[in-house]
Amino acid sequence: MGLSLGELATIAGAELRGDPDRVIERVETLQDATAGAISFLANPQYRKFLAETAASAVIVAPGDVAHCHIDCLVSDNPYLAHARVTTALYPDRAVTAGVHPGAVVDSTAQVHPTAEVAANAYVGERAVIGEGVFVGPGCVVLEDCEIGSGSRLVAMATLGPRTRLGQRCLIHPGAVIGGDGFGLANDAGAWVKVPQIGRAWLGDDVEVGSCSSIDRGAIGNTVIDDGVKIDSQVHVAHNVTIGRHTAMAGCAGIAGSTHIGAYCTVAGGVGITGHVELADHVHVSGATAVTRSIKKPGVYTGTVPAMEHASWLKNFARLRHLDDMVRRLRQLEKEMATLRESTNKGT
Amino acid sequence: MGLSLGELATIAGAELRGDPDRVIERVETLQDATAGAISFLANPQYRKFLAETAASAVIVAPGDVAHCHIDCLVSDNPYLAHARVTTALYPDRAVTAGVHPGAVVDSTAQVHPTAEVAANAYVGERAVIGEGVFVGPGCVVLEDCEIGSGSRLVAMATLGPRTRLGQRCLIHPGAVIGGDGFGLANDAGAWVKVPQIGRAWLGDDVEVGSCSSIDRGAIGNTVIDDGVKIDSQVHVAHNVTIGRHTAMAGCAGIAGSTHIGAYCTVAGGVGITGHVELADHVHVSGATAVTRSIKKPGVYTGTVPAMEHASWLKNFARLRHLDDMVRRLRQLEKEMATLRESTNKGT
Amino acid sequence: MGLSLGELATIAGAELRGDPDRVIERVETLQDATAGAISFLANPQYRKFLAETAASAVIVAPGDVAHCHIDCLVSDNPYLAHARVTTALYPDRAVTAGVHPGAVVDSTAQVHPTAEVAANAYVGERAVIGEGVFVGPGCVVLEDCEIGSGSRLVAMATLGPRTRLGQRCLIHPGAVIGGDGFGLANDAGAWVKVPQIGRAWLGDDVEVGSCSSIDRGAIGNTVIDDGVKIDSQVHVAHNVTIGRHTAMAGCAGIAGSTHIGAYCTVAGGVGITGHVELADHVHVSGATAVTRSIKKPGVYTGTVPAMEHASWLKNFARLRHLDDMVRRLRQLEKEMATLRESTNKGT
Repeated sequence: MGLSLGELATIAGAELRGDPDRVIERVETLQDATAGAISFLANPQYRKFLAETAASAVIVAPGDVAHCHIDCLVSDNPYLAHARVTTALYPDRAVTAGVHPGAVVDSTAQVHPTAEVAANAYVGERAVIGEGVFVGPGCVVLEDCEIGSGSRLVAMATLGPRTRLGQRCLIHPGAVIGGDGFGLANDAGAWVKVPQIGRAWLGDDVEVGSCSSIDRGAIGNTVIDDGVKIDSQVHVAHNVTIGRHTAMAGCAGIAGSTHIGAYCTVAGGVGITGHVELADHVHVSGATAVTRSIKKPGVYTGTVPAMEHASWLKNFARLRHLDDMVRRLRQLEKEMATLRESTNKGT
Repeated sequence: MGLSLGELATIAGAELRGDPDRVIERVETLQDATAGAISFLANPQYRKFLAETAASAVIVAPGDVAHCHIDCLVSDNPYLAHARVTTALYPDRAVTAGVHPGAVVDSTAQVHPTAEVAANAYVGERAVIGEGVFVGPGCVVLEDCEIGSGSRLVAMATLGPRTRLGQRCLIHPGAVIGGDGFGLANDAGAWVKVPQIGRAWLGDDVEVGSCSSIDRGAIGNTVIDDGVKIDSQVHVAHNVTIGRHTAMAGCAGIAGSTHIGAYCTVAGGVGITGHVELADHVHVSGATAVTRSIKKPGVYTGTVPAMEHASWLKNFARLRHLDDMVRRLRQLEKEMATLRESTNKGT
Repeated sequence: MGLSLGELATIAGAELRGDPDRVIERVETLQDATAGAISFLANPQYRKFLAETAASAVIVAPGDVAHCHIDCLVSDNPYLAHARVTTALYPDRAVTAGVHPGAVVDSTAQVHPTAEVAANAYVGERAVIGEGVFVGPGCVVLEDCEIGSGSRLVAMATLGPRTRLGQRCLIHPGAVIGGDGFGLANDAGAWVKVPQIGRAWLGDDVEVGSCSSIDRGAIGNTVIDDGVKIDSQVHVAHNVTIGRHTAMAGCAGIAGSTHIGAYCTVAGGVGITGHVELADHVHVSGATAVTRSIKKPGVYTGTVPAMEHASWLKNFARLRHLDDMVRRLRQLEKEMATLRESTNKGT
């Protein structure tokens, strides 16, 4: 296919400098682009590729227009314009209404006539599959799930009992939404399972990456609000709530009953303990452990930076003597004060 | 359905204060409960909801009975009583004996006539599926597995070759039990795979959460003893052994050939290195790295707490100078001692 | 089956001391071995089992030959010889050419006549499955994938659109290769998805463990070079490149656009930030966070060792006062210098 630069400018909400009829067929990076491609410049470290690019057009910020020798779309947010252009040029795989003969749909499930249930997928008792939904190959949708219109389960995703997806959710392969939370009562040393009778409740436009787990609630629900984006290999435990438009990167883990605000970012490998609250607009840096509530917006960090092993060996052995160091420091300060005093007296 | 308070008291091993014939239909939280529901009070921070709850009954500790205006079940361990009541009111999905026509069972496998193999599941060569076992939708059970009676694979779980599950195990979606361990020999820089010929051997009443991996042994077995409970997104590497009734929370990872004792707890995000031993009754705090054996029961921690980024910036840069700080401290102490001595002499 | 010691010596590239016609049927550990088994001694801590082993033969280094009372294969690298012997004695499950009637293969896909597509697997539009490839039970291979000859998807693995596997790759259950990368543009607080139009491109002899995610590139490719070995529960984000023969252990996570060199090792639980470079021959210790590029080969560590909780409590509280400690130390040093000077003057 392909779209004209004029169409793309409208889609991107960008100003066109150049030929509105030029046809663009692909998106490529500045450095690798070929004729027919559109590229973008969002990160200044790639500005060096602008002069030599073979792209047919480029998306740039106003300040970079002067350096463009090719047609450009001018946007205050070139990366956002790039997202819109790419979405237009690479539409999702079309949904082919109907149930594949190799899929199994329980007789009590309701599948909207415009939805697709692909090969080897399973849809359980009383599940309700909305308009235009795509249940990809090998997916399992267990009993009493609800999937809102336009949502897509790419492939091999699992929805546990009673899971609710809003509209336009996107669930990647290997993700498990609504699996059991980890609820255990102790009986003289042995663990007794607490059945998890809540749900995983996802709002609209939520994305969940490959092999991530969103566990369902123990009694109430685990709630992932509209527009939340979750990367691969993330764990969200039972009864967590995550506010609108928060994003969580790979390998993050959130323990049970923690509440994360809206517009937060949780970087890769972060761990957040259970039963705490993070305010809106909190940003947690990579590989940080959050051990208590954070009530103030801002950036929070606990990352321990890697160093050469020899340096680590001698420095980190000191960690278990920090308290002792403080005591010694205090003792020295006291003695110094005494000395100072006696010296002053002496003079 | 629903059960009478009298029946629930018996099930919970609790003392009933109130009407034994009152019918209870659901479990709800104190704050959200409605008529027909039973609630519980285990955590003192929820005591404030007791006076106003609309629940029909509540499970409480003896000390809270005086504050109850409704029927109650009195138990020394209200959370455990809650687990039992919830299990009674929310029984597992019944097992419907037989193999779904959309499942594939190898002709050499033995499926007990009371077991269920659900839609799109696969059972491989010589696998033995016990009494009342549920192999859920989309599961894969590879060759030579044994699944003990009453075990349930909820959906989309995989058992690698020769995996053994005891009785009443519960395996959640996306879990992989008995995948290859990570065994590599080095041949002048290149890695040569060491075939993993051991098994993953799970005892009775083991639970494994969604998307967790329990790798099979290199030669001997990976052994998960009776009653061990494993959360979502956990990695247990080859030849690890985990003792009875140990619980491991989300995102924990245990490297190869490590032995963890019985009655331990391993919190979220913990990493334990390979070839070490943890005694019984060891408790590792969240986001802690265990780098050597722990021979004494107790709580062990290495969590680095998050702080405001500006504070982190100035403090953590010092980590690579800790050793230097100790040296300077020592030097000062020496000089101070000299001064003290000369001052003493001087007086 | 079984192989003679003579055959195994050839396979292992080892020198035989003993009866070339002795038949070996199994591999067992020194301590548990029985007649008919071959064992190996690579780790000196197991040397104590050599004298008493009931194995029929053992693989040893030249220095241990004198202590052997049984037939032995002598190799400078006994663990590598063990890998080769085990591979010979425990061949992979044979590939049975053809598509299982319970599998679904799109009419536009090309499956080599010698390849096997097992029960409940799915192969999508235009996918190309090479010679002798095994697509195991429950696997999903999406549109436009290419799988090189001799590669094996054990079971329940997913290949996202356009994924490319080289020859002899081995993909374990639950792994997702070529799922969407995590690309988001921000539109006044809300996230807008950036379609991920690149591929996951894997070279020859790559192994990916259970439940690991290798995300596909945003525009260019995520590239995993020949001989790279990846354990279970690992996350490789979009546009990462990993050089030849690098190995990554469980629960490691690599953020987007990072480049890791060849012959590196990344231990368990390591996190590496995005947009950095690691040179060849870099070794990162377990549970370490790499926050910037590493240009020199060597070992890098940031592991914080667990300690008894009481010790942690008093020592780690000091972390947020490190900078203050340095200032106080400096102040003391200044005062000490002044004192020293005045004392010197005084004498």
